Amino acid sequence: MRMYDIIKKKRDGDELSAEEIRFFVEGYTAGEIPDYQAAALCMAIYFKGMTLAETTELTLAVRDSGEKLNFEGVNGIRVDKHSTGGVGDKTSLVVAPIVASLGVKVAKMSGRGLGHTGGTVDKLESIEGFRVTLPEDEFLAIVNKVGVAIVGQSKALAPADKKLYALRDVTATVDSMPLIASSIMGKKLAADDDCIVLDVKTGSGSFMKTLEDSKTLASIMVGIGKAAGKKMMALITDMDRPLGEAIGNSLEVKEAIATLNGQGPDDLTALCTALASHMLSLAGQGDYAACEAKVKQAIADGRALDTLAAMVKAQGGREDWIYHPERFPQAPYTKEVKAPSDGYITAIDAEGYGIASLLLGAGRNTMEDTLDYSAGILLKKKTGDAVRAGETLAILCASDEKKFEAAEARFLEATTIGAQKPEERPLIFATVA
Amino acid sequence: MRMYDIIKKKRDGDELSAEEIRFFVEGYTAGEIPDYQAAALCMAIYFKGMTLAETTELTLAVRDSGEKLNFEGVNGIRVDKHSTGGVGDKTSLVVAPIVASLGVKVAKMSGRGLGHTGGTVDKLESIEGFRVTLPEDEFLAIVNKVGVAIVGQSKALAPADKKLYALRDVTATVDSMPLIASSIMGKKLAADDDCIVLDVKTGSGSFMKTLEDSKTLASIMVGIGKAAGKKMMALITDMDRPLGEAIGNSLEVKEAIATLNGQGPDDLTALCTALASHMLSLAGQGDYAACEAKVKQAIADGRALDTLAAMVKAQGGREDWIYHPERFPQAPYTKEVKAPSDGYITAIDAEGYGIASLLLGAGRNTMEDTLDYSAGILLKKKTGDAVRAGETLAILCASDEKKFEAAEARFLEATTIGAQKPEERPLIFATVA
Repeated sequence: MRMYDIIKKKRDGDELSAEEIRFFVEGYTAGEIPDYQAAALCMAIYFKGMTLAETTELTLAVRDSGEKLNFEGVNGIRVDKHSTGGVGDKTSLVVAPIVASLGVKVAKMSGRGLGHTGGTVDKLESIEGFRVTLPEDEFLAIVNKVGVAIVGQSKALAPADKKLYALRDVTATVDSMPLIASSIMGKKLAADDDCIVLDVKTGSGSFMKTLEDSKTLASIMVGIGKAAGKKMMALITDMDRPLGEAIGNSLEVKEAIATLNGQGPDDLTALCTALASHMLSLAGQGDYAACEAKVKQAIADGRALDTLAAMVKAQGGREDWIYHPERFPQAPYTKEVKAPSDGYITAIDAEGYGIASLLLGAGRNTMEDTLDYSAGILLKKKTGDAVRAGETLAILCASDEKKFEAAEARFLEATTIGAQKPEERPLIFATVA
Repeated sequence: MRMYDIIKKKRDGDELSAEEIRFFVEGYTAGEIPDYQAAALCMAIYFKGMTLAETTELTLAVRDSGEKLNFEGVNGIRVDKHSTGGVGDKTSLVVAPIVASLGVKVAKMSGRGLGHTGGTVDKLESIEGFRVTLPEDEFLAIVNKVGVAIVGQSKALAPADKKLYALRDVTATVDSMPLIASSIMGKKLAADDDCIVLDVKTGSGSFMKTLEDSKTLASIMVGIGKAAGKKMMALITDMDRPLGEAIGNSLEVKEAIATLNGQGPDDLTALCTALASHMLSLAGQGDYAACEAKVKQAIADGRALDTLAAMVKAQGGREDWIYHPERFPQAPYTKEVKAPSDGYITAIDAEGYGIASLLLGAGRNTMEDTLDYSAGILLKKKTGDAVRAGETLAILCASDEKKFEAAEARFLEATTIGAQKPEERPLIFATVA
């Protein structure tokens, strides 16, 4: 088998066999196939696509490229949730404690943020003492005892994906449906969960700009997961504006705590309720309505918040901050962004808000950058809100006043104010099962 | 400027600017842009193509990537001919002496053969003593004195093309019109000719399998050459069967000598006459009909053959072999290939004949292979000829009897015999000016 023939076959629009896909992934991971041939293949895939059978095989080959986790020592059904990434998305911090408090196990591996989207692991590290790296036995022991643990992704997991993603990132081949699907699902399937709920974002702040593309991506990923023996479902949710009102690491943790206290923003609360209910239902805890009632009860009676606090304590973090979020360090400087004119906010470029937050110190341009956990943005107005000239749109938070100018400019550039109130967009567009 | 943005722009089907194309070619030649980004760009070009403006700029950037030749020391108009490569194509050995004998200068750089097509330089090296590497002053002195010299391509010429071609060869991006055109013309324009006649092959033995593609390629190359200030024209000629009756290095030189003696095969004689007449006409020696008459006269009165002999002598080769081609070493073994059935030869896969010749020792699989100069094939029947079962189709020549089996099998596989005499194909399909 020759890599040249595999590239040519895909270039000419033919379907690759399982053997050809394995040959590529194994050879590339082992360093036997050079980057330039992998880059040519990725670009050919970008143009010619892949069938569901090819995408599934690619996913399984990525999964099999490294270590696989074994959750057999966990008592009970394991469920995971994965979001394709968005600005202000702190749902994992809310839904994982909720479902764990209701008896379903969550043994979660999460990523760090890069570019305009944050990472769950970074957010958790804004809690003093919180350890995102745990020995496997301790990780599983916490899952058994508390119901949930969240750690960083092991480097040994799906190394083919790490290598391929780094290559795609510099060769303009990231935006390819089968490559996105196999990257996400290859990592997910290397963990040993029974059920996976996907939160596929759609809109300006996500990979998938159109609803149709988001549905296609969701269907592909659900199909792959089912083929691998998992219970799967996906929600298509809005990322045309940020989720909730906080962007930035500790700001988002505090918003997650507020949500678990029943005081979160409406959109975040609604999405977390939907995700957690689907996770429970998929895990066999009853139909959606019954699960939704349980979720609301777990928030109302404080069980979900207690579970978050117990997890934080078990992972070495300041449990007291969960009950006293005012103890999180605050950014020494804040600046209010004022509306330049009267009208309605007709559009927000969520990616632009993410970049403004990055400019304030909350994000990374490269994996080597360090984070300012208290930096970020608190939104006072979102799409559809009426504003008057001079009214506060948002509060920028930073440790360095010099960062405000560029961040404010980027923020305002991403905010469109017009005369007409825009049509309301749903928060959840579709369910793919 | 970032290579990533250039790849993405082409991927999205937009036209690259002159600056972007230069940035890529210069950066890639200097080793600052990695192979994997160049491979992704080549694949994007494969799918999205290039405008004539882009292709011209790419060609000029390739030309400018290394040394350029300076033929100012040559007295008179310099004309070159370039063929896109075919099986049995020895026209350079015939037309260069003809036009030189008529007062137009030919300072020719030629390539070596690889795969199923031969190279002019390899063929000349089958003449004992012939030197294909000359110091530049000696090269130009021979051009001035004899009218023609033919040497191997300098490694310093168009290094971007060498690097790009090697990459395209292993990433399935060879078959791209703008990449083929810029590769050929980038090298041609690095030489300092006034006029260039292109011989663009069409059919089974060439890059371009269809007439339409061949015409497009010819138009692009003529357009590029004109944009660079050259007088240009192109012929589209048949490569659905080999040219002439000899395939293999010294066998082809002997056929070229026969043609200069007025005793060559009809197709080779006709094509050489057309090419030489166009070269002369482009160089200002009169209209086509007048030039054709001069060409025929130069063959008839022996001037053209004398010019070849003078060039061979000046370049250190056995001049006497030109007048006594029986002095070329002959292959110690020959084998007749017999027709398996009665009928007409309805089709020849010219590439297959080239590979059969390679299997006999006449060609290279890699640039390190050594050549057997006397090995090759003498055709006795070509497309359209009637044959009887057992009649000789060709004579295989080799230095090793063991090579006959595989070569004969490949030869017969490439020969189709049917009941109906096929329609005649023209030798010259079109002229592009």
